[in-house]
Amino acid sequence: VQIALALYPGFTALDAVGPYQVLANVPGAEVVWCAERAGPVTDDNGLITLDVGASFADVPAPDVLVVPGGVGSRRFGRLGDPLVEWVRAASATATWTTSVCTGALVLAAAGLLDGRPATTHWAFADQLRALGATYTEQRVVIDGSVATAAGVSAGIDLALTLAARLAGPEVAQAIQLGIEYDPQPPFDSGAPAKADSGIRDLVLAVNARAEEAWSPPEPAAG
Amino acid sequence: VQIALALYPGFTALDAVGPYQVLANVPGAEVVWCAERAGPVTDDNGLITLDVGASFADVPAPDVLVVPGGVGSRRFGRLGDPLVEWVRAASATATWTTSVCTGALVLAAAGLLDGRPATTHWAFADQLRALGATYTEQRVVIDGSVATAAGVSAGIDLALTLAARLAGPEVAQAIQLGIEYDPQPPFDSGAPAKADSGIRDLVLAVNARAEEAWSPPEPAAG
Repeated sequence: VQIALALYPGFTALDAVGPYQVLANVPGAEVVWCAERAGPVTDDNGLITLDVGASFADVPAPDVLVVPGGVGSRRFGRLGDPLVEWVRAASATATWTTSVCTGALVLAAAGLLDGRPATTHWAFADQLRALGATYTEQRVVIDGSVATAAGVSAGIDLALTLAARLAGPEVAQAIQLGIEYDPQPPFDSGAPAKADSGIRDLVLAVNARAEEAWSPPEPAAG
Repeated sequence: VQIALALYPGFTALDAVGPYQVLANVPGAEVVWCAERAGPVTDDNGLITLDVGASFADVPAPDVLVVPGGVGSRRFGRLGDPLVEWVRAASATATWTTSVCTGALVLAAAGLLDGRPATTHWAFADQLRALGATYTEQRVVIDGSVATAAGVSAGIDLALTLAARLAGPEVAQAIQLGIEYDPQPPFDSGAPAKADSGIRDLVLAVNARAEEAWSPPEPAAG
């Protein structure tokens, strides 16, 4: 089982590393990080740079593909973008085409979510709807071979769900125990319906500032 | 507030990236990745390589230090190891000295946990006790300026707890909502008391194999 984790400048680190930590433990899984070009790719905070080993061309037909979110994912709007093209082509043969957070906008741009139920980060529900998907307020939404997760940390729940489908519930439970995923957040404000409106406004303001501050890296010379 | 995330060959990626995703959002925080030497550092699966910008010498007095776990952390047994020495020295002036998973073994090796309550990954409780700590079966244990978290994913809960101490509960709640941390794992097997003994045995066997298979990278030339 080849599992391709797609990166691009401005991804959100936990969107990618949460699923990675689960899926790398699926017996027999070959996990491959890929991007438009092999080489370093930096996250949306500009603070994590991952060395990516493969280009999209190197991984044309993964069994599972995972597209994380992040400010960079909000800049892919059309076919012709290498990431969107790769998702569109690879999804035709993949067993699972999946996204975390605003990675769903990339799936939508690739035409995979037209009229289909899907989820994304709560703050981007309207953007997902505008791209033709039926936004569904759930942590993980599965529709045929497409699985989408809500914001950032929801990728862990998505990946455990996938692990169970790929390798059975015992393996998924062992992976959960291995990463001691028995969450006990000190607050209960992880969903918009649970948080004060002041907290929600703060998140939206921080998002808007990050969106404005981020710019894609200069294309590599040559 | 300078927050130093320490890496070493054989770290577990989610141990580090979970706290990173929370702490990077603390207003005014300067997050620095550091290691024995600046440069690439690879995780315990051999699948993620992070470009680390600073050496331990570059970050002598962070306000907060975070030591992730991973198979590599089980090889640090004594003062004289650069990571252990750095933790020992930096903790003297830090507001918070923290660990995730078996990162606690590094804090213990640095002499910080003698007779103190602390936690680690459930499968390494005996090793933590052997190093002089009072193993405490909690998700996050705070004792003075030392905070330890249980296995892997517990780093997210630790970091939200720290964020609240550093910047207040509203900010911590906004960060939680920003990463949509409203966990809904598909199974309830994230703690040893909740999982079947067969699942526990499977995890211990997988851990033992990983422990045996991993070897530290050759030291860099020069």
